[in-house]
Amino acid sequence: MQLAKVRGTVVSTQKEPSLRGVKLLLLQLLDENGQLLPDYEVAADSGVGAGVDEWVLVTRGSAARQVFGSSQERPVDATVVAIVDTVTVENQTLYSKKDQYR
Amino acid sequence: MQLAKVRGTVVSTQKEPSLRGVKLLLLQLLDENGQLLPDYEVAADSGVGAGVDEWVLVTRGSAARQVFGSSQERPVDATVVAIVDTVTVENQTLYSKKDQYR
Amino acid sequence: MQLAKVRGTVVSTQKEPSLRGVKLLLLQLLDENGQLLPDYEVAADSGVGAGVDEWVLVTRGSAARQVFGSSQERPVDATVVAIVDTVTVENQTLYSKKDQYR
Amino acid sequence: MQLAKVRGTVVSTQKEPSLRGVKLLLLQLLDENGQLLPDYEVAADSGVGAGVDEWVLVTRGSAARQVFGSSQERPVDATVVAIVDTVTVENQTLYSKKDQYR
Amino acid sequence: MQLAKVRGTVVSTQKEPSLRGVKLLLLQLLDENGQLLPDYEVAADSGVGAGVDEWVLVTRGSAARQVFGSSQERPVDATVVAIVDTVTVENQTLYSKKDQYR
Repeated sequence: MQLAKVRGTVVSTQKEPSLRGVKLLLLQLLDENGQLLPDYEVAADSGVGAGVDEWVLVTRGSAARQVFGSSQERPVDATVVAIVDTVTVENQTLYSKKDQYR
Repeated sequence: MQLAKVRGTVVSTQKEPSLRGVKLLLLQLLDENGQLLPDYEVAADSGVGAGVDEWVLVTRGSAARQVFGSSQERPVDATVVAIVDTVTVENQTLYSKKDQYR
Repeated sequence: MQLAKVRGTVVSTQKEPSLRGVKLLLLQLLDENGQLLPDYEVAADSGVGAGVDEWVLVTRGSAARQVFGSSQERPVDATVVAIVDTVTVENQTLYSKKDQYR
Repeated sequence: MQLAKVRGTVVSTQKEPSLRGVKLLLLQLLDENGQLLPDYEVAADSGVGAGVDEWVLVTRGSAARQVFGSSQERPVDATVVAIVDTVTVENQTLYSKKDQYR
Repeated sequence: MQLAKVRGTVVSTQKEPSLRGVKLLLLQLLDENGQLLPDYEVAADSGVGAGVDEWVLVTRGSAARQVFGSSQERPVDATVVAIVDTVTVENQTLYSKKDQYR
């Protein structure tokens, strides 16, 4: 999985019927120091309810469909699967959601 | 998924039988600011009916086959799954289809 | 899918038994203007019969196995699925097989 | 698979239910000489029990779900599958866990 | 598939049980002219018995598991599927195993 920051949303009315009701978030990927990378991903929100500026984990490939139950026939290749609380590197806190919003 | 702009079409008569009747679009990928990237993708149109210059969402990998029903035996690794109406970043509108064609 | 040009062949006698009889083509990928990229792919020919110098479409990932019928147990991650007739960008012809061999 | 070094952990309470109990490690990828690359991966620990500073093998894509038994419905696209003992290149030892901790 | 050269081996005792008995080779990828690239892959040997310095074909993604029979539950994302005899580009021999070991 990759760390990413929620930047916004993508809205579409003319789309694959199976995408109806799927919220699409615009994520910007983060490097291993928490800096914004030039890479982004438009990802489904699996239901964790991530909001703008939150750090999340995005899963890609066929794993992105594992959150939709046994049918899994949605054409989604990226999904937000977690809102990040803390990232710890070499026993030092790189990111803490609590501090971010203090 | 990635944001892309429809640039044109690819036509082939000598091809895998399962690709007959599948419209192939030439997409150019967009960066997170809506600028054209040097990367492109030849993608199937799942039936959303995207036209030249429209912004679309392209899904890649095994997800690209989820639009073809239960058989899913088409050798397609990229599919257009939505025509984009709006992209919103940090509560500002980055792109609006309505404004584009005003 | 990506556009590619057939450059040659790869031959192997000591290989996975399921690869026997599968023709392996050396493809060089093309950019969106039809220029050769430094990236290549060794791909199976699904039966479209592509020859050296022809432009083809290559599909990658699990899609590459969708051409081998219901068994699909060949360890192939790239397959030529079409010989390209024309590529049209913004209503201009970027490539036409007919003109190429005139 | 790629060689990587365990750098830390990622903790999340608000996440996909199927990720409960899955330990998430922050890995930094290594190049073929054992130097840290700028690329990282947040990977599940399949149960090998890797600790900070250890060299591991990380598997990505659908392979990352093969460690979770027959259900395999976890949305994980990267998993630590081995702790590396030795890496040998051209009959010379590039890395030995024993020497590392001597 | 990509062309690669076998450079060495990776050994691990603490690993996923399903990886027991799977030989892990360190491959360095080759460009389309046969030069070593900075990219490597740790790949399973499917049984073709590749040795150090030999040119091989490596398959990646879910295709890498197609060599392990019907169970296929090994967490492997790269496998050596062939030892290369010859690579021919534009009717010229780029590589011949026979000449290499003459």
